[in-house]
Order: sequence, then structure tokens, then C-alpha cells
Amino acid sequence: MKYLQQSFSVKFEYKVYFSSGLFNLNNPLLNDFLSTDGNLKKIFFVVDQGVGIEILDSIRAYFDVHKAAVLIDEILVVPGGEQVKNDTQYFDTILEAVNKHQIDRHSYIAAVGGGSVLDLVGYAAAVSHRGIRHIRIPSTVLSQNDSGIGVKNGINYFGKKNFLGTFAPPVAVFNDDLFLKTLGERDWRSGISEAVKVALIKDPDFFDWIEENAHLLAARDMEAMNYLIIRCAELHMQHIAGKDPFETGSSRPLDFGHWSAHKLEQLTDFEVLHGEAVAMGMALDTVYSNLSGLLSDEECSRILNLLQQLGFELTHPMMETESSKSRILKGLEEFREHLGGELTIMLLEKIGSGIEVHEMDSEALKRAGIILKERQ
Amino acid sequence: MKYLQQSFSVKFEYKVYFSSGLFNLNNPLLNDFLSTDGNLKKIFFVVDQGVGIEILDSIRAYFDVHKAAVLIDEILVVPGGEQVKNDTQYFDTILEAVNKHQIDRHSYIAAVGGGSVLDLVGYAAAVSHRGIRHIRIPSTVLSQNDSGIGVKNGINYFGKKNFLGTFAPPVAVFNDDLFLKTLGERDWRSGISEAVKVALIKDPDFFDWIEENAHLLAARDMEAMNYLIIRCAELHMQHIAGKDPFETGSSRPLDFGHWSAHKLEQLTDFEVLHGEAVAMGMALDTVYSNLSGLLSDEECSRILNLLQQLGFELTHPMMETESSKSRILKGLEEFREHLGGELTIMLLEKIGSGIEVHEMDSEALKRAGIILKERQ
Repeated sequence: MKYLQQSFSVKFEYKVYFSSGLFNLNNPLLNDFLSTDGNLKKIFFVVDQGVGIEILDSIRAYFDVHKAAVLIDEILVVPGGEQVKNDTQYFDTILEAVNKHQIDRHSYIAAVGGGSVLDLVGYAAAVSHRGIRHIRIPSTVLSQNDSGIGVKNGINYFGKKNFLGTFAPPVAVFNDDLFLKTLGERDWRSGISEAVKVALIKDPDFFDWIEENAHLLAARDMEAMNYLIIRCAELHMQHIAGKDPFETGSSRPLDFGHWSAHKLEQLTDFEVLHGEAVAMGMALDTVYSNLSGLLSDEECSRILNLLQQLGFELTHPMMETESSKSRILKGLEEFREHLGGELTIMLLEKIGSGIEVHEMDSEALKRAGIILKERQ
Repeated sequence: MKYLQQSFSVKFEYKVYFSSGLFNLNNPLLNDFLSTDGNLKKIFFVVDQGVGIEILDSIRAYFDVHKAAVLIDEILVVPGGEQVKNDTQYFDTILEAVNKHQIDRHSYIAAVGGGSVLDLVGYAAAVSHRGIRHIRIPSTVLSQNDSGIGVKNGINYFGKKNFLGTFAPPVAVFNDDLFLKTLGERDWRSGISEAVKVALIKDPDFFDWIEENAHLLAARDMEAMNYLIIRCAELHMQHIAGKDPFETGSSRPLDFGHWSAHKLEQLTDFEVLHGEAVAMGMALDTVYSNLSGLLSDEECSRILNLLQQLGFELTHPMMETESSKSRILKGLEEFREHLGGELTIMLLEKIGSGIEVHEMDSEALKRAGIILKERQ
């Protein structure tokens, strides 16, 4: 058998910066980043309207003073939330701007907003000219500690979440804590659940810290939130870098609580926020871990108590697992398909330590659902 | 300045197999490849109609006997050539099949055909579910030695070549020389020009070999063609692996003769084949290299003689560089844009050794065009 072997590695590097007031005129951070490349480049902005359109003036004023890149005068404003990933007109509009403004592979496309807008813009940037340099400026807790700092992007198609997408690291991420101050209560809280998730499966000390600071987090203490974000981001980035960054294997060990969360979001037409759904999904898989004899009663209680102390609901009518018509259980089957045939579910053996299983018992799932409904 | 540093490498590996009669029932190669993965997977085929639809029966018969993967009964047949990249209906049709047949990330999408079909299918596979395993079965000289064995894919949009695309290595490439026997004269010849290109800039011994075997290649000798393909593929793969596989830098040193070739294809609405255009583009840049004092008269003559011996035309009415209305010269400006501002053009200092320059003199270009017109 005659063949030629191809083999090479591609190195990906980027920094996640933490700043306060990225577009303050006296903040050189973004401009310094853009100056590292010798040539003068264009930068095109797409902004989540949830951030508030006042930011357009701040961006324009910033680039009036700082000249490391030429701001493209048209700043595209798009709706936030899942809808921007559902309707391909937003994807098309970005491509049109790339074409109209001749944004090439050495220019930048910056996205300011929540996870959905970052996913959309990241995807458009990744496939335009085989990849335009992409800068992410996440505006929510969730995007600053999880979705915005990773390597995935995507849009929905045929009504399926992230049906289209790629793995494409950004060139830089800028986390600006000023955005967090204007978040609504639900968005503030919602992002905390990914930190609880990563603590539960990776870092018992971080779980202890969240428990001790739950009252501060619930009371919107910025210092506590900044620590939570940086530690969660760090753990998430280590996970990505550690093994299989582009997920060619089938295991997705960071996704504790996510199989039902994804389904719940879809069943409620994204009325339940991702972080809220993840909190409920974690509650379900925590109780299930306990019923399966993996997790102690005491640790199970600590986890449910923490979620409630942070203000999360533990279940939702659409999360019911007892009837034969349970729609959430269909999510398990869809997750199996998504993984390519073999199911892999992360459960807990103790706080800070996940364990993978390849099937779930429907009787135990039913009981877990009932326990949560009664506790709610 | 507070930041987290992300840094990881992703390893990409695939083999380019050489075979004769890939779908012969007694050829285990493809089935063996599909068996290496323990689980039973689906495989979906997209076939270039230029290959001839008899192949559908061969594919079906093969998977009736060989069971390492489950053939999806629907085999999609698409037109060959650039049109399949111009009209997004073909891209959409592939996505619909992915959705309808629940082709997941661990299934395979195989493409059989010329470079355009491979580009289209590779792109659709790369963005579906963030990347479905993609198998390439190139059917032309050009795709077997160059475009089909690399890491790029793409479709045209806004009338611009490869406006959408990604860098996404296939999981395997199968070169089957039976396809070559049915190629028309122009397609047979056309693929040879990429071998001449890579010899000119990288491998003087290979150039000597092509010169010595030009009469056999022109007379459709299969043994000579098989050697040409394997050596060209090897050099091309080494180039990709050697430095910057995903082209984050701006230099594209393999693209000798390509700035005008791309433009000529577009100006003639792809009536001139890629390889024919590359031959003319190389002729232009060879004479230009000579006029610039880089390349000796003798070597310049050897190159032009070889191209003519292989049956290539050296120029085309649309290649004229002398008038103020020259449309080909606009290609130089577009290439500069494509590269992100700084022009990088590969010229020759001798046979087997390229040299990059960052501008071209319009007087010398004009003279080079006239010389070729007179020689034609």
C-alpha cells in the first residue's frame, strides 16, 4: 500500500485581558494590542444592542484618539440573545460588510456583546476569507468566564443549535468589568452557574470559595465577581488547552449538567437563560449522582443549597422526568446522537471530581426529578 | 496589565493513499481505512457528475460487500467545475443531507471529483457540526497532485473566489489513477502545470525529470503521470507542513504564476482552466524574472520550451499587459488586497529556486506580455 503521510501541528495562542473601561480614552490596552502588528490595519465592530448603543460613541471617540487601527465607520448593531443565531440575515449582513469594506485576513473583526453575538461574529469571521482576525469583547458574566474565551463559534440552522460553526481561536479577548454593572439580575446570576460547574468537576477549593462568597455574589459585589470570573476563565482555558482543544474525540467532560440544559433552553424557546438551565441541569445530575451511590448525601445537599443561595431555581415544569411523555428525556437521546452514537455523561463522585458514565437509568432519573420538584 | 495566556497546539495527520480501482470489490483499502475506528459509522457521498454516474453503482456495490461503514443510500451528484462553487444551492443541498441523514461529527462525508467539488464538499463538511470527518477522492490530475491533498476548502460568494472557506485537513485522501484515464485532453494537461510550478520554485531535479519525460506526459503515459503526481503531491504536502499550514502570515510562496492566473480564470469566466491559466501566469512571471535580471536567458528559454512541449499556450488575449486598459494588471492590485496590503510575489532566480519580491515594474510587465504574444 503506497501512501504519503501528512503530519503537522498548528500552534494557537491568545491572551484574555482583564480591564475596566476598555474604551476610556486613557486606557491604552486595546490600542497597544493593535500596534503589535507593524502594519496599519482596519477594524470592524459588531455590537450587541443589549450593551447599549452609547458604546458606539465611545468606540468612535477611542479610535479618534488611538490610531493603531483604522476604525471602519459603519458599526453594525445586532440584537442580543439566541435570535441573532437563528436568523441567517445577521450572518449575511456581516459578510456583506466584509465585502463592502474590503476587510481582509489581516484586518480585525471585533465583537462586543453576550455569548450569542460572539458566536455569530466568530463564525462569520472564521469563514470569511478563510479566517479574519477576530477580537472578542464579552459583555456578560457567562461570556467573560466561559463561552467568550474559548475556541468555538456557531449559528443555528434547521432549528438546531450550532448546526453550523467551527473551532477558531480569537486573536485576543478583552474582559471589561464595566459591562457587568449594567447587567440585569438574571444575566448577572446566570453566568455564575458555569463557575459552579467547573468548580464541581475540577476544583474543590474553588467550590469552597464560591460557597463562602455566595452572599457577596448574590449581592452583586464586584470584587467577588471579578475573582469568580478570572478563576473560572482560567480553569476553562486550562481544560481547552489540556486535551483535544478541537474536540475530535467524543467525550465532553466539561459539560456537567448540560445535556438537559440544552434541551430545556430549546423547549422554553430560550426563555430560560443558559446559566439558569445549567443550574437546573446540574441539580438534576447532582441528585442523580447521589441516587446512583456516587455522591454523598452531605455533598449533594451542599450543592443544592449553594444553587439556591445564589438565587437559582432547581427545576422547571419542562424538566419533569416522571411521565412517559417527558420531553426533557428526549434530550438524552439527542445528546447521544450529537456525540456520535456513544453517550458520555459527566456525573459527580465528590465535589471537585467528575466521573464519566455511558448510560443513565431512567428510574433514577425519574426519582431525581421528583425530589427536585418537592424541594423547589 | 492582568491577563491569562492561552497556548496550545493541535496536531493534524492524514494519509494520501495511491491506488488503482478504489471501488473494485477486491480492493480493501477504503474499507480498511473505515474499520480503524471501532464504531460503525455512516458515510455520505457527493459525486462530481464529470466522473460519470456509473460510479454510483460501483460505490453501492462496494458497500454491499464491505461493511466497515454504512453507506447512506442517497448519493448526491453535483456538476463539476467552478459553477458548483458559485451557486450556493449546492452548499445548501449538502447541509440538508447532513440534517436529513443525521450525519454527525463521527460520520464521514466523502467527495469524489475535481478540485471544485472537493472545495465545496470540504467546506460544507468543515462547518457542519463544527466539522464532520471528510474523505477526499480526487478525480483529476490537478486535484490529485495539488488542490485535493491540501488543507483548504471554499466556495465563491459575491462573485469572489473562495470568499467563504476554512483551513480543515481531510481525514484521508485516496488518489485513484483509473479516473485519469477518462480525462479529456485539456484536463489531463492542465494538472501538469502545478507540478511544473513546484519544480520551478523547489526542486531542480524534478524539473529535469519533467523535461526528460515531457513527451511521455504529453502522450498520456500512465507511469510517467503517476510519478509526476506522487512527487508533486509530496512537495506540496511538505510545503504545507513546513511552515504556517493555515497561512496566518502573508507570504504565499507556492503561488508562483498565480496572481495573473486567478484573474485570467475570472476574466474568461473559467473558460480557461486553472492549470492552463497557471501555465500562462508562469510564462509571464518567468519572462518578467528574466527581464528583471533574476533569471538567465537560457533557463527562461528552457521553461517556455517545456510549457510548449507539454502543449500549453503561453498567453491569451485577456493576458495583455501593454494597454492602459489592461484588465490582467488589475489582478495585481486585487492580489495585494487579498494578501492584506503588502504585495508578495514569487519570482525565479533560477530553476528550482524562487525569490519573493514586493513590487512589480509595470514597464517590464508590459514588455513581458509583448514578448509572449510574439512567441505564441
